[in-house]
Amino acid sequence: MPLLPARPAVTDTRRVVIVGAGFAGMAAAKGLDGAPVEVTLVDRNNFSTFQPLLYQVATSGLNAADVAHPVRGVFQDQANLAFRQATATGVDWDRRRLLLEDGALDFDHLVVAAGACTNFFGVEGAEAHALPLYGLRDAVRLRNHVLGRFEATDASPALIDDGALTFVVVGGGPTGVEVAGALVELFDRVLRKDFHTLAVSRARVLLLEMRDELLPPFSPPSRRHARAILEARGVEVRTATTVERVGATRVRLAGGEELRAHTLVWAAGVRANPVAAALGLPTGRGGRIVVDDHLRVRDRPGVFAVGDVAAAPDRHGEPLPQLAPVAMQAGRHVATQIRADHDAGATRPFRYVDKGTMATIGRRAAVAELPLGIRLSGTPAWFAWLGLHLVFLVGARNRFSVLVNWAWNYLTWDRGPRLILDTGPQAPGEPPGEPVTRR
Amino acid sequence: MPLLPARPAVTDTRRVVIVGAGFAGMAAAKGLDGAPVEVTLVDRNNFSTFQPLLYQVATSGLNAADVAHPVRGVFQDQANLAFRQATATGVDWDRRRLLLEDGALDFDHLVVAAGACTNFFGVEGAEAHALPLYGLRDAVRLRNHVLGRFEATDASPALIDDGALTFVVVGGGPTGVEVAGALVELFDRVLRKDFHTLAVSRARVLLLEMRDELLPPFSPPSRRHARAILEARGVEVRTATTVERVGATRVRLAGGEELRAHTLVWAAGVRANPVAAALGLPTGRGGRIVVDDHLRVRDRPGVFAVGDVAAAPDRHGEPLPQLAPVAMQAGRHVATQIRADHDAGATRPFRYVDKGTMATIGRRAAVAELPLGIRLSGTPAWFAWLGLHLVFLVGARNRFSVLVNWAWNYLTWDRGPRLILDTGPQAPGEPPGEPVTRR
Repeated sequence: MPLLPARPAVTDTRRVVIVGAGFAGMAAAKGLDGAPVEVTLVDRNNFSTFQPLLYQVATSGLNAADVAHPVRGVFQDQANLAFRQATATGVDWDRRRLLLEDGALDFDHLVVAAGACTNFFGVEGAEAHALPLYGLRDAVRLRNHVLGRFEATDASPALIDDGALTFVVVGGGPTGVEVAGALVELFDRVLRKDFHTLAVSRARVLLLEMRDELLPPFSPPSRRHARAILEARGVEVRTATTVERVGATRVRLAGGEELRAHTLVWAAGVRANPVAAALGLPTGRGGRIVVDDHLRVRDRPGVFAVGDVAAAPDRHGEPLPQLAPVAMQAGRHVATQIRADHDAGATRPFRYVDKGTMATIGRRAAVAELPLGIRLSGTPAWFAWLGLHLVFLVGARNRFSVLVNWAWNYLTWDRGPRLILDTGPQAPGEPPGEPVTRR
Repeated sequence: MPLLPARPAVTDTRRVVIVGAGFAGMAAAKGLDGAPVEVTLVDRNNFSTFQPLLYQVATSGLNAADVAHPVRGVFQDQANLAFRQATATGVDWDRRRLLLEDGALDFDHLVVAAGACTNFFGVEGAEAHALPLYGLRDAVRLRNHVLGRFEATDASPALIDDGALTFVVVGGGPTGVEVAGALVELFDRVLRKDFHTLAVSRARVLLLEMRDELLPPFSPPSRRHARAILEARGVEVRTATTVERVGATRVRLAGGEELRAHTLVWAAGVRANPVAAALGLPTGRGGRIVVDDHLRVRDRPGVFAVGDVAAAPDRHGEPLPQLAPVAMQAGRHVATQIRADHDAGATRPFRYVDKGTMATIGRRAAVAELPLGIRLSGTPAWFAWLGLHLVFLVGARNRFSVLVNWAWNYLTWDRGPRLILDTGPQAPGEPPGEPVTRR
């Protein structure tokens, strides 16, 4: 009797490779659940990060694990999906294979959803000395750094005059507003109790914005409200202020003024993940991949780009903003297109539905602008913000943990995980070796 | 009108310096709450680690932050205590000052509670290639490493034959038993669902013990029970087995047998923190500081040593074991002695009260030996273990978070924080610089 093969022979099932497990890539992967395709989702990390809450990790409000979810956990029951922890290095277009550092993946459809990275806009010293806040490692490092400044200053109070407790946040968009607001709250409500003799009240938080106002996408009343609340809580807001040079302990502004500051948080903007260029795809401003209104890459049949790495046009041909809702909707749209294409149906253009924008400033303070001109601020906006973020977090466990942490922080005016914990580098695939001997 | 000084002039308040914020140091510091002394607690970390649960961090059962508590948070209301994040480097005995990497602290009483570190017993290659499990960084690195082996093997299944999924645990004491039991549980219950095509069932966990039986401090029935449960759950237990050499991917045993294993967890023992020798104190076996039965260091008036760094004699003159309960009781005892000395009372000898020993093996499986010959195993021992560890955790928030995580893991057969997340080195006091640019 002949032995049956353990798995069915190779069929003509089409292979979809998705690069990046952020909002866009995860939405595309989930959108293909049950479709007659073989999906491989590639990310250099084994987890998907919920970026809107990174600033809370950086300011000791949440655990790193609360805002990250193991990718494999999301797809335990999705039989047509394989995950691969790897870094993409290029594409062999003739053979239609995505090249990885340690292998290759054949594809019929390629979805590039590789996200973005910090854009230092060529500011001198920024890449070496500024602290970005785009990924989970950034957030943990910023937390370690901020707490480290207080420990160092407690040991040597003279460092205050040198700027060890001066925290400059560059960029007046939602991330900059959120991290500045959270820093003053951490200092005033928690570290003031932690440090018995240190003059914590001398800690300064400066929020610098190049343009004339904070929160450019918001309406003038929301902008004014955000600025008033930030200033009332102790943030020094300086608009129309440009950073010219960043050193380890000094920040020079355009015009020549020099700030003494041992910390510069860079929330001034992002550019597309450089992998976009490495893949040989056409890129435009900010290194973003140029796509048509179907999210397709020109002259590359079966190739899509979504999320922060891509510049999808809106109705007027302007690129859509690099926001989580755009990424999620685009990811879902591409999944639908791939399904439709499989049935030989026509693909449709992508229409982003703007459901509003929000930014939180601190305890019971936020601004939200919803469709139909609805504008919220203060406590209602804050609760709306909390609720929305809980809903969009991945995984019931993370949702529950974040809820519990928020309730705890709110009720006790405390912050939990204010640990200075670096864990050393250890690349995936590396044999146990040198890193583990550092003690 | 003369200006008043901001703080009262220096009085003759005696200064107590405690080195180490583990079980012993924290107990000593808390025991001095309200005493007419000035306490400075020194630790190189800004957090205190609850070591008995580290193996759960290493096996993705708990967050790192669940088993660590910021030291300053514990002492927010203890007015006579200052914390200093620093590394002790020596003592100037003439001036009675503890020397730090970045300063010095004068003392009248010195309490050395610096803990232990892994003892590799000179086994060739162990320091370079084995993964210890004594500190929080060790636990996070072990977690990253274990999950990394599965990711690497999923990409290249041939690695299984090379030992990429073979996990060797050295040391059959409670830590070794716990980590081996937790690893098989992680593989069987969680990773099997995470990896759709990988032959997770080929993952092996070997527990090697040099002596003839596991869990030497336990009674023979408990030892047999633990071994039977471990084996039933898939751990390969090998007693009377000695490791001779450790490589990155190979482990050689005495007798010449070579195991293919990319992971070797070292739970074989500890030695005193080398700071004991650096301070110029008399040390004995395992580098532990020799103290009398009052926990005093001979010929060093006002100097005490407690916890894993010290060898306190029991009633028979034998050194007490390096266990958390010994450390906590000794820390409290020293606090009482320092108070008594202040009132010119006599100090008393330290008598350790043994309240029993426990080790957990996995879900609803543990062994516990209590006074009066009471022996528990299985579900009752497991619940006793859970309850006891919840009670001894520092901080209501950590207790609550651990309880929630345990309930979640128990009810869903899931594990949450299985993230591969290294955050790079960043020493306290270091200006923002190179480390943050690694992406």
